[in-house]
Amino acid sequence: FKHSWKNFKEFSRKVLEMGWNDPRKIMHAVKMGLALSLVSLLIFWKQPFPDIAQYSIWAILTVIVMFEFSIGATFIKGFNRGLGTFCAGVLAFGCAELAMLVGKWEEIIIVISIFFIAAFASYLKLYPTMAPYEYGYRVFVLTYCILMMAGNRTRDYTEAVLTRLMLIALGAGICLIINICIFPIWAGEDLHRLVVKNFKDLATSLEGCVEGYLQCVEYERIPSKILTYQPSDDPLYNGYRSVIESTTRENTLLGFALWEPPHGRYRKLNYPWRNYVKVSGALRHCAFMVMALHGSLLSEIQAPPEKRQVFRSELKTVCAEGAKVLRQLGTKIETTEKLNDDNVLKQVHEAAEHLQKKIDQKSYLLVKSESWEIGNRPQELSDIEKSHTENQQFTHLGFKSLSEAVLDLRSIPNLSTKEPIISPSLRKQIPWPSCFSLDHGESVIKEDEIKTYESASSLSLATFASLLIEFVARLQNVVDAFEELSEKAEFKGGIEEDGRM
Amino acid sequence: FKHSWKNFKEFSRKVLEMGWNDPRKIMHAVKMGLALSLVSLLIFWKQPFPDIAQYSIWAILTVIVMFEFSIGATFIKGFNRGLGTFCAGVLAFGCAELAMLVGKWEEIIIVISIFFIAAFASYLKLYPTMAPYEYGYRVFVLTYCILMMAGNRTRDYTEAVLTRLMLIALGAGICLIINICIFPIWAGEDLHRLVVKNFKDLATSLEGCVEGYLQCVEYERIPSKILTYQPSDDPLYNGYRSVIESTTRENTLLGFALWEPPHGRYRKLNYPWRNYVKVSGALRHCAFMVMALHGSLLSEIQAPPEKRQVFRSELKTVCAEGAKVLRQLGTKIETTEKLNDDNVLKQVHEAAEHLQKKIDQKSYLLVKSESWEIGNRPQELSDIEKSHTENQQFTHLGFKSLSEAVLDLRSIPNLSTKEPIISPSLRKQIPWPSCFSLDHGESVIKEDEIKTYESASSLSLATFASLLIEFVARLQNVVDAFEELSEKAEFKGGIEEDGRM
Repeated sequence: FKHSWKNFKEFSRKVLEMGWNDPRKIMHAVKMGLALSLVSLLIFWKQPFPDIAQYSIWAILTVIVMFEFSIGATFIKGFNRGLGTFCAGVLAFGCAELAMLVGKWEEIIIVISIFFIAAFASYLKLYPTMAPYEYGYRVFVLTYCILMMAGNRTRDYTEAVLTRLMLIALGAGICLIINICIFPIWAGEDLHRLVVKNFKDLATSLEGCVEGYLQCVEYERIPSKILTYQPSDDPLYNGYRSVIESTTRENTLLGFALWEPPHGRYRKLNYPWRNYVKVSGALRHCAFMVMALHGSLLSEIQAPPEKRQVFRSELKTVCAEGAKVLRQLGTKIETTEKLNDDNVLKQVHEAAEHLQKKIDQKSYLLVKSESWEIGNRPQELSDIEKSHTENQQFTHLGFKSLSEAVLDLRSIPNLSTKEPIISPSLRKQIPWPSCFSLDHGESVIKEDEIKTYESASSLSLATFASLLIEFVARLQNVVDAFEELSEKAEFKGGIEEDGRM
Repeated sequence: FKHSWKNFKEFSRKVLEMGWNDPRKIMHAVKMGLALSLVSLLIFWKQPFPDIAQYSIWAILTVIVMFEFSIGATFIKGFNRGLGTFCAGVLAFGCAELAMLVGKWEEIIIVISIFFIAAFASYLKLYPTMAPYEYGYRVFVLTYCILMMAGNRTRDYTEAVLTRLMLIALGAGICLIINICIFPIWAGEDLHRLVVKNFKDLATSLEGCVEGYLQCVEYERIPSKILTYQPSDDPLYNGYRSVIESTTRENTLLGFALWEPPHGRYRKLNYPWRNYVKVSGALRHCAFMVMALHGSLLSEIQAPPEKRQVFRSELKTVCAEGAKVLRQLGTKIETTEKLNDDNVLKQVHEAAEHLQKKIDQKSYLLVKSESWEIGNRPQELSDIEKSHTENQQFTHLGFKSLSEAVLDLRSIPNLSTKEPIISPSLRKQIPWPSCFSLDHGESVIKEDEIKTYESASSLSLATFASLLIEFVARLQNVVDAFEELSEKAEFKGGIEEDGRM
């Protein structure tokens, strides 16, 4: 008992905290209470038409189902409710006439018509494009059934239909007025904020990945939640995961936002909400690259730390510039401003260029030449080489030899050691190499295997860099999508830009 | 008019087709019609208690909201409805006593209590873990309002509560009996099928990626839908996208399946439905690698076709073995059988090993030695080289030189050409190089840039291979998750396996 009381206290604390963090939730609850108590004032209605109070269930039902968190959602529900009720009303009128003509078999006609209408509506609402109108179908069937049964009982179908329609209109009216006039909560605003948050999350995640890679963070044991793509506590993982997982939420909010009238900062008619989702989609395309970068951190094949340090400054620059671009775009969206930079990607592209050049210069670090097939043809070359390599000086950009170079692998640590030392980065490869050593068991082949993994581990550095460069390349899409959005939504600062362009 | 008639005909055809492809949808509609017409038989109820027919709305409402496609969903809705109604009933009793005590102010007490209860329930249902009970809160508020208002009108709260509870129980009973006894539709079955489909989709997508890469499929223009991660027609893209996007659907089905009683093949109590989602999560972790492979196809930096062909057979083998494992696991899940293979991953691991070895042997194809810093030290080496390289013969596994090899890059096409030819694979790089050539404009630097991209393009082949190998490594998780599932769900064929192990 004491334990459950403690749980209850803990739960209450969390619930109150939720309201403290997002006062809109408290406002929503107060508004809902207000709308319902307004409708329940019908209780005081005694004369004329004493039936009104009896049918007040319709107004209450309408408020309860229509009152949603955001204004867009309330509109959609209201539309569904209205259309469903209207169609059911029309159909009920028709069927009632028919049933009354038949006379004695009236009840049977009603039951049969309910069967067919319920079956037809239930079938149609399973059609994929009908999903947003699912609620409308429910209302349609409900209203039809009630009208037919009530009309049959009171022998006055017209009155049954009209009273209910009026009460439903009353409930819907109260819902809309309270939801729009008092502290409106817009789904569009939420969508806007979600997209901005995605940009910032991804930037943090990107920095975390590259930082972690350079510091050679290794997961002692990869959380099985990451391996099965479930929510986990890892902040780095959560950053990109939330970007990737926000699809459903974005689409829901988009569906609501499209129904909302122009308001606040979104005063343009036909505000391009779809473009927010498009920007977020382009960002997601980048997020998959960050995910692949994180995959390198999780990978069983890890590049040796000393080699990572060789590319340290270049990787860091690309990452910092990439994150800067993401944050910049996020802020621009937040403040609905156009880019006033001519080419926001210039620096990150230059950084990626430098990284690529560095890889070129140092690519001997990434490969293992021991087992090259072409290792037996050097002598023909060495003479030609000798004649000009002596004059060569390394220069950062302009260096071009006659394209032949010779490897000195003894100058590189790790690869020249002849003993099959299992490097620390290989210790996690339990599942894979073990199955092979079981099969063969010979020490020569084992040594050979370890070499293979060593070279795989070096190449993984190239993979990491390639993925980072691909990430940079994908930023172009994000910028394009952003520019389309900023044009369509008429973000601020357009004039200066137009003048410059 | 003619146009809309044609549209209507087209729509009808598609709607009928849906039923043809999935007869369960037709059955669901028929069942819904049956349940509703059964409830509407209340219309014939005239004596005793003439009020029953008037309150029949409660039974109808219950059927309409409770009747869901799958049995699990019906149970959840029923539970919500029951709990919500019960709590509201108890509370209404209490509040009615209180209101009656106050006497004159009865109505005011009722309106105020409605305000607080509605606000409280609306607030609580926004708490994240309360999401599945959202419907219960709605029912709670609705029932409370109606009971209070009806009781106030008829001056008999007890009768108001009891009649309604009985009718709700009637509606719920009809729902459950019809939904379970006639052609039951199980959410668990759907979840099972979805997981199997994911395996097959991913296998197809993997094959498509590697096949496309080897055939050097290039997207003339990448569909902008892929760049913004929206649904597209590309079958290869759809394969892995559906695997990645099925999270939400899986979790919904899981929520329903957990409520379903043991049935059919799933006779075990506490059937491990969660493990199906876990297997699918592990598969998703692989799908992200397939997505990264597809990213290489979409990439602006493309490896030259002739180099891809060098690794053709190895890439194909890894891909074929990987797809085989996926299909095998998919089939095993479909037929709920255990793996009778000791090590299902043996072949695919061997294939990946061979690919890695091939990359080692041919890694000179992946790097550009022109700009190596260490290019000016070959002459010291060439003598040592000469002495032993003449005796060397290439052997597939046992080859080990003294670790020094010399590059002959003239033997490799493309890299030795001195003219800055823009290769076909570079033509899509519009956004990136162009911004640099604008900045500098000098031909020397441009040539330099093109070289950089050439080498980047070769390294991208290494990236593709690395990603494929990482995909293979991740298969281990899928197999682990599958084995956990097959243990917990007691798949067939366990005895033979136990005997062997």
